[in-house]
Amino acid sequence: MSDESRHAKRDAYARAGVDIAAGNVAVQRYRDVTAGWVHPEQLGSLGGFSGLFRLPGDATRALVGSTDGVGTKILIAIAARRYDTVGGDLVNHCVNDILVTGADPLFFLDYLAVGKLDPEIAAAVVSGVHRACRENHCALLGGETAEMPGVYRPEHFDLAGTIVGLVELDAIPDPNRVQPGDAILGLPAVGLHTNGYTLARALIAEDEYSRPFAGTTFADALLAPHPSYLAPVRAIRAVADVKSMAHITGGGLLENVPRTLPEHAAAIFEQTRWVVPPIMVELVRRGNLAHEERYRTLNMGVGYTLIVPIADVDSALVAAPGARVVGFIQPRRDGDPRVVVHPARA
Amino acid sequence: MSDESRHAKRDAYARAGVDIAAGNVAVQRYRDVTAGWVHPEQLGSLGGFSGLFRLPGDATRALVGSTDGVGTKILIAIAARRYDTVGGDLVNHCVNDILVTGADPLFFLDYLAVGKLDPEIAAAVVSGVHRACRENHCALLGGETAEMPGVYRPEHFDLAGTIVGLVELDAIPDPNRVQPGDAILGLPAVGLHTNGYTLARALIAEDEYSRPFAGTTFADALLAPHPSYLAPVRAIRAVADVKSMAHITGGGLLENVPRTLPEHAAAIFEQTRWVVPPIMVELVRRGNLAHEERYRTLNMGVGYTLIVPIADVDSALVAAPGARVVGFIQPRRDGDPRVVVHPARA
Repeated sequence: MSDESRHAKRDAYARAGVDIAAGNVAVQRYRDVTAGWVHPEQLGSLGGFSGLFRLPGDATRALVGSTDGVGTKILIAIAARRYDTVGGDLVNHCVNDILVTGADPLFFLDYLAVGKLDPEIAAAVVSGVHRACRENHCALLGGETAEMPGVYRPEHFDLAGTIVGLVELDAIPDPNRVQPGDAILGLPAVGLHTNGYTLARALIAEDEYSRPFAGTTFADALLAPHPSYLAPVRAIRAVADVKSMAHITGGGLLENVPRTLPEHAAAIFEQTRWVVPPIMVELVRRGNLAHEERYRTLNMGVGYTLIVPIADVDSALVAAPGARVVGFIQPRRDGDPRVVVHPARA
Repeated sequence: MSDESRHAKRDAYARAGVDIAAGNVAVQRYRDVTAGWVHPEQLGSLGGFSGLFRLPGDATRALVGSTDGVGTKILIAIAARRYDTVGGDLVNHCVNDILVTGADPLFFLDYLAVGKLDPEIAAAVVSGVHRACRENHCALLGGETAEMPGVYRPEHFDLAGTIVGLVELDAIPDPNRVQPGDAILGLPAVGLHTNGYTLARALIAEDEYSRPFAGTTFADALLAPHPSYLAPVRAIRAVADVKSMAHITGGGLLENVPRTLPEHAAAIFEQTRWVVPPIMVELVRRGNLAHEERYRTLNMGVGYTLIVPIADVDSALVAAPGARVVGFIQPRRDGDPRVVVHPARA
């Protein structure tokens, strides 16, 4: 990442109140304070999407865990009084995070913290969590509802969750097998998913939410549910040699794809190969987002990537009709960018 | 629970801003919305302390998961600018919750949500989480730090976490074996642990935190760390037939102990058998808390209970020096209370 791009990102997010520089410092400080001890059964994480832990007494399998929150998408849901979709956003986000390791979900637990407990709103939130768990054949094993006056405003709440999955060790993708000439398949994003909402809230005012936008309303476009990629990824893995996968969350294509690429490989995306959802086009226009900013803050229409040999592309596209080729792997030399999105000035 | 006691509890907490009635309604509504589907590998939970899930492909073991938060103890930590202890509170709370099933902890994931990210404060929090994980030989598998301006005040944060453990199915305690004449062992609580803080904050003003109290300060007494009971419980289980265990959290002895008792058994506690920590005595005095209120809102000095045959008491007390007999099991008829604490008007 060039100094210029860091600067660009700080600009876009700083305007919206999120401090990327502080985030980077915090991550470094976490490394410092946790460096003294790592549990012996803990395996290296695959690009940091989730953590892996050897299943005790089982030489062939590992447990995979990941925690995430809905982020400030929750403030849009609250403003629109739509409480039953954020649970699905959260569960599907977590399912996709562990899917990168090849894991099947086993169970999920939610954490709902409120300023003032409204049982009907809480039940609507948990109902959404439960529905998405069922759709992913994942148990809703438990949860915690905390009423915390003084931390949350009465009408506010926060929602986070943890997923645990199981993976056969020999089913974990090995990014070191990625090589020039491989194709990058993309699964379509339907909206912002669960990232970029602090920026979106800075660019789209609350009194616009109910207004028409792109055949729907701003609220609908902003709250479009984060999909689970479990079914298409399973379908593709059944017919193709998937070498590496990435869930495109905060950091966009530019920060998520490199996490599962070897040093010598660059991912070259060709943006003409997929459709950028209207809400992203609108945010780019309103925020006058530079090329780097848009591909680092937003998913820009690609929700999940899979790297496969070119020979497996046709069968993969048949197996998962929504998928398309979004780019290719090229050789990379030291100092070259790890991800490029063409056209550079779209 | 009598109507009078419900009323008493509502009084104490309502004053402090926590709505117990809404909490009960929410729990019922959760049952409604999740009743339509339960994952086939999900086992009944043991008193609701944590959820159990059959390990796929393994007939003898189950995974155990639990999510919790630090609650409003965090506001006292923030006011006292003491950031490295709440992580231990959270991890140990979670360890104890799954310990009730007999599970050994495998790994933990944290969720830290902040209004404005201060990397040093975040690192102090995560450092506390990591230290407690190490003490419990539990991997810190991952976590999420969310900066959410607009949800949290700049100086505020919330901390939640999820623990996953593993248990042999035949090591899970069976509360149906509890019978009259069994002894109840108690492990000492060192303070409020992670419950009753909304009430404590209502009764002890922030400008008192630095004042001397019981040989220390109010801040120290209020922030006394939630201990892990993993070591003493393992030691006791190695020498005694432990039939049932309870972690004394929100709801106190009156609500936590019945969760792991059979219908025909009543737990009779004798409060002269243990020491009530000074901070609880102070809260009882300031809040003029009725007997029911104090034993439902606070742990009153007992952090964890184990029910054992009377013949195993001596060896258990040798194995875990801090433990003591705090009561006995008596026969219970329909309509009798499930837990009684003598003296009733202490």
